[in-house]
Amino acid sequence: MATLDTKGREASYLADIIEACGRKTILIDVGTGRDGGDKPADAKTPTELLKQIAERTRSKVGDLLGAGTISAIVGVAGGRASAVFGEVVSELPYGVPKFLVSSARPALLAELATHSDIILYPTLVDLFGINVFTSRVLKNAGRAIAATHYAPVKLGRDKKIVAITAFGVTTPAANQCVARLADAGVAAIVFPANGAGGHKMEQLIAAGEFDAVIDLTITELGDEIVGGTPSAGPDRLKAASRQQIPQVIAPGAIDMVNFGLPSSVPDQFRGRQFYAHTPYTTLMRTTASENASIGRLTAERLSRAKGPTMVLWPAKGVSDYDRQGGIFYDPDADKAWLDAVKGHLSAHVMVRDLNCHINDGEFAEAATAWILEQLTQEGASHADV
Amino acid sequence: MATLDTKGREASYLADIIEACGRKTILIDVGTGRDGGDKPADAKTPTELLKQIAERTRSKVGDLLGAGTISAIVGVAGGRASAVFGEVVSELPYGVPKFLVSSARPALLAELATHSDIILYPTLVDLFGINVFTSRVLKNAGRAIAATHYAPVKLGRDKKIVAITAFGVTTPAANQCVARLADAGVAAIVFPANGAGGHKMEQLIAAGEFDAVIDLTITELGDEIVGGTPSAGPDRLKAASRQQIPQVIAPGAIDMVNFGLPSSVPDQFRGRQFYAHTPYTTLMRTTASENASIGRLTAERLSRAKGPTMVLWPAKGVSDYDRQGGIFYDPDADKAWLDAVKGHLSAHVMVRDLNCHINDGEFAEAATAWILEQLTQEGASHADV
Repeated sequence: MATLDTKGREASYLADIIEACGRKTILIDVGTGRDGGDKPADAKTPTELLKQIAERTRSKVGDLLGAGTISAIVGVAGGRASAVFGEVVSELPYGVPKFLVSSARPALLAELATHSDIILYPTLVDLFGINVFTSRVLKNAGRAIAATHYAPVKLGRDKKIVAITAFGVTTPAANQCVARLADAGVAAIVFPANGAGGHKMEQLIAAGEFDAVIDLTITELGDEIVGGTPSAGPDRLKAASRQQIPQVIAPGAIDMVNFGLPSSVPDQFRGRQFYAHTPYTTLMRTTASENASIGRLTAERLSRAKGPTMVLWPAKGVSDYDRQGGIFYDPDADKAWLDAVKGHLSAHVMVRDLNCHINDGEFAEAATAWILEQLTQEGASHADV
Repeated sequence: MATLDTKGREASYLADIIEACGRKTILIDVGTGRDGGDKPADAKTPTELLKQIAERTRSKVGDLLGAGTISAIVGVAGGRASAVFGEVVSELPYGVPKFLVSSARPALLAELATHSDIILYPTLVDLFGINVFTSRVLKNAGRAIAATHYAPVKLGRDKKIVAITAFGVTTPAANQCVARLADAGVAAIVFPANGAGGHKMEQLIAAGEFDAVIDLTITELGDEIVGGTPSAGPDRLKAASRQQIPQVIAPGAIDMVNFGLPSSVPDQFRGRQFYAHTPYTTLMRTTASENASIGRLTAERLSRAKGPTMVLWPAKGVSDYDRQGGIFYDPDADKAWLDAVKGHLSAHVMVRDLNCHINDGEFAEAATAWILEQLTQEGASHADV
């Protein structure tokens, strides 16, 4: 996929490399510069025009993939065509190779990658003719995309699958849940609660991919409310309730809001408590009042749950940094979350207090035991029909 | 490269796929969880520890590449190991395949990709055991990386090479320069003036990769001063002066400051004139006073130039949107840039006014003719030695 009016040579060069690897190619033009019957004539702004081109191309690509004509898609693009590529692939299944070779600024590419599993190749140089730089990039890209495969298998339903959310600071909890579920013959898919991960999980839950959710790490709600970098958007903590599947919810990592480089922290937070998790990730300790807001939002969203739903509370801390002696340890601030949850939660949702840390074995055991119980009952009631 | 303490299984799985494609692999551990003689013991913070691990690994990888033992590097990583990977590959040559399979948030990956040509594979799911999701990702990644190559050739010096900066709105100018240079047997590498591109160009100029620069598009200075997204940092417009190579500078796209999604525009700019270039790129018209600041900065940086330097002024507009009838057309605002340049520029730097638009043939002709003249004189004077 390329704008053949401006990137025609580069797209042909890439196609030749892919064909030399023994794969076939189809060129899809998303350019605006060619006259032709299929150029949208009624677009009034560049943005509108791009949307129309993307819409048309998305349906074309969907058809080609559905018919088995293509098994991967590669874009050669600058800024505008990258935006089009993002729209075009946004609803293709997970695992279909989507490869974007682009001179667009990396931050724009990151924006696209929050919605789907695009392999990004930021070239840093413009794709402007074939030269010593672009030929290296296009050769690598062509060989790489030619080597990828896609087997359109429906997720194996021989096993039940549970979605789990984790952060570095709640990884021990996720680890133990995965192991415990595996012992019971249940598969687990872990999503990083980094905005993109939570967003993707909600999408896949809504698509019916999971049988239950252990939402250990709802920290993205904190980012949504306080304004951290990795907000997962307003649809977080909603899909499982709508799908009526069993869910356990825990306040993992609500002790922190995430930012990027220290320079990315907005001025309004000057004077707050920060911690450099890595040079690129700056954590800010949440306050009791912020946690109360997160708790209220948690309760509002969970109150709509139609399936079996349990909130699990770890009294001794919600992340690795939030434990006795830890830099973010503040049980009172955490407790504000629990109080707000209890104050606003609909009566049909259970809350269970555990006197342990979120990463303790006891916590993972309680979460998985309850989920396994729900999955078994569900299986049994289905069998009754 | 992976943290073998936490991603050992995933790294082995990936290595098996790469080996099955006929390539050899070496596992490099950047984990912190194993006891061993080479674990840095004196790091006091996680950030310090990561820096030490990165430093050690960078020198190891450099040695392996130098010895021809490896020809590509692939990372399997979460947030922290991604940051380490970024540091480790930051000084590897352009074109050495650097492949990062990562569950880190895409914005962090974008940060890493502004410094080097990393192929990014954001997984959206955590790399947590081998399951129906992670196996698809790791298979694609393994096959892709196994297919890439790196031929460590020094850039061909049979031709002179000129670096050019462009934006969508100055692409016609860049196109004409590339064509005109090609006619004269000179190669051109075009960099997108999107922050990452300008940053990379300055790095490569400093590394001696280019014989001259046609810096058509200095819009990144506007982002640096006004606070737009794609600032190239404080080293923009410096390397060519230090390298003493011929340079032409034009005020391409100084009529605009770039932001991402409309929601990313800081509140302080409310009420300003905006234009949605794409749904992901929002442009703001610069004011006369901002252009004067950009002009002053341009002059300050160019005054240090030791090689032949010429500022070229297009009186009829600096971008596609800045021409008679265009949405950003404002000759007075542009003129403030020229006045500031003339007011602060050292006398040894030439300024030439052209009564045309930056994208007119006349402009590209003037820029390339002068550069070709400099390159010829240089060749001649070298021949005299």
